[in-house]
Amino acid sequence: MTAPGPSPTLLVLDAEPRPRLGRLAGRARIEYADESRLAERLPHADVLLVWDFTSHAVRRAWPGGGPRPGWVHTASAGVDHLMCPELADSDTVVTNARGVFDQPIAEYVAALVLAMAKDLPRTLELQRERSWRHRESQRVAGTRACVVGSGPIGRAIGRTLSALGVTTAVVGRTPRADVHGPDDLDRLLARADWVIAAAPLTEDTRGMFDARRFALMQPSARFVNVGRGQLVAEDALAEALAGRRIAGAALDVFADEPLPAGSPLWGAPGLIVSPHMSGDTVGWRDELGAQFVELYECWAAGRPLPNVVDKKRGYVPGH
Amino acid sequence: MTAPGPSPTLLVLDAEPRPRLGRLAGRARIEYADESRLAERLPHADVLLVWDFTSHAVRRAWPGGGPRPGWVHTASAGVDHLMCPELADSDTVVTNARGVFDQPIAEYVAALVLAMAKDLPRTLELQRERSWRHRESQRVAGTRACVVGSGPIGRAIGRTLSALGVTTAVVGRTPRADVHGPDDLDRLLARADWVIAAAPLTEDTRGMFDARRFALMQPSARFVNVGRGQLVAEDALAEALAGRRIAGAALDVFADEPLPAGSPLWGAPGLIVSPHMSGDTVGWRDELGAQFVELYECWAAGRPLPNVVDKKRGYVPGH
Repeated sequence: MTAPGPSPTLLVLDAEPRPRLGRLAGRARIEYADESRLAERLPHADVLLVWDFTSHAVRRAWPGGGPRPGWVHTASAGVDHLMCPELADSDTVVTNARGVFDQPIAEYVAALVLAMAKDLPRTLELQRERSWRHRESQRVAGTRACVVGSGPIGRAIGRTLSALGVTTAVVGRTPRADVHGPDDLDRLLARADWVIAAAPLTEDTRGMFDARRFALMQPSARFVNVGRGQLVAEDALAEALAGRRIAGAALDVFADEPLPAGSPLWGAPGLIVSPHMSGDTVGWRDELGAQFVELYECWAAGRPLPNVVDKKRGYVPGH
Repeated sequence: MTAPGPSPTLLVLDAEPRPRLGRLAGRARIEYADESRLAERLPHADVLLVWDFTSHAVRRAWPGGGPRPGWVHTASAGVDHLMCPELADSDTVVTNARGVFDQPIAEYVAALVLAMAKDLPRTLELQRERSWRHRESQRVAGTRACVVGSGPIGRAIGRTLSALGVTTAVVGRTPRADVHGPDDLDRLLARADWVIAAAPLTEDTRGMFDARRFALMQPSARFVNVGRGQLVAEDALAEALAGRRIAGAALDVFADEPLPAGSPLWGAPGLIVSPHMSGDTVGWRDELGAQFVELYECWAAGRPLPNVVDKKRGYVPGH
């Protein structure tokens, strides 16, 4: 990473509302570009802030000619939308928004788990019909969860479910204290009441929840995805739900976002669909902006950056 | 309480499915009566098990003539449906199902709190419309709850919300360690994000959530009732919701149950209606039956009964 000049150029891949970068005024030339202008502006930037984290424009623009920024920060936990071989092989440092989404996503998963255990979607349906129909629901304490993904988000989910009395196993790429390795995955899936996908999207994890893995799960099991849509073979999930081979699911992320109105997933039996919002609690954009400003100050001072992504693995290596 | 004879008569106020009382076979004459036969059979019973806890038949039948059972057990936490002055003034011991519902109800409250924070009802509505609409939701950690009711249910709710990072104050009739007294109630209501009603229904608590108290709450506050419907002035709640004076509510209990199809509560804005099911997780009837059998064995052996209700106060005095 080259040392910054006196007034470095910060290129922001733009999205509304823009980040609050007031503290950087006068210390950086801040330039906003949308997807269409990114390729043209990229050679002139010292730093790229991927504020529009729904865009794949970086992946498309990066391989083009000319100099490239020495540092790219994405206002997201995942980096799958921007990584390409040319970026991975370059000297450019990539950082992510590690930490901002952990607790919100863990709460969101707890909300989904409890809503399914307590049959809340059916209760709301019956309310619309003005129909009083008492049912028995399930206790969450004493059930078992398998959380796939051992980064800060997966571990926050594990802590929150444990606090509710759920026996929780976390599975990651590298086994360590409190984290199971990939060899344990199928065995843990087969006995879980709740399977939570919170892994980064990498070549290892793409499509990992497929027909074979849904078949391993208990008929009473429920599946939740708050990671990336491409972790899941969506057709296989829809079939598992339609065939009652698992009891329910909740997806907050999809291979194709926004989920097209014609997708059969909207109406899949026992499936809760939400619009990629699990981590986005009031104030989240301000937190993302403030986090970038902090990282920028490290970078400008020549101090080592936190949250550096291992570009080959596609995530920040864990503790 | 008179000592039991060799084969005491156990009268069960009947409901389907019946309790599993197999262990009492040969040790008690077990007689089932519905509401219509209760008054006639009451003088012949040594013990009354109020298995149909939705019935008010005991309150109606008890004042009649003839001997009365020395022990009444109700398969419910509340005793409001059976208490009458004649029972309160008698020597009859009343016990309740203290303990069975604590954890299930606490989980149910957590499910409602998280569902409201994460805007889940709206997400399910949008799913029906196949509409992808990203929203910001709320963090639960760092919010404040006021739980009204300091029995085992209220305290379990307090523990569960605390485990989710909610700063929780429990209010009871008698101030003690970790429990605020009634003098603190209005002050705590005014700063709570979540107000949870989990008090027994007594002359002190009837209608306690009235227009004045809803007016004290923050416009962003949400109200949950898992106690008894009559704790709440339902019209005042409906008005507070319609006028956006509070942000939302969830009622699991109602003054009139089942809630009539014509009740305006079904369609009140921001209100979740559920059919008195918060404590009823799979296996709950078996737990209630097993708990009664345990109490019966105490009683038959002449040992002191646990869960003895203070009949004047209307609940089991706390620890």
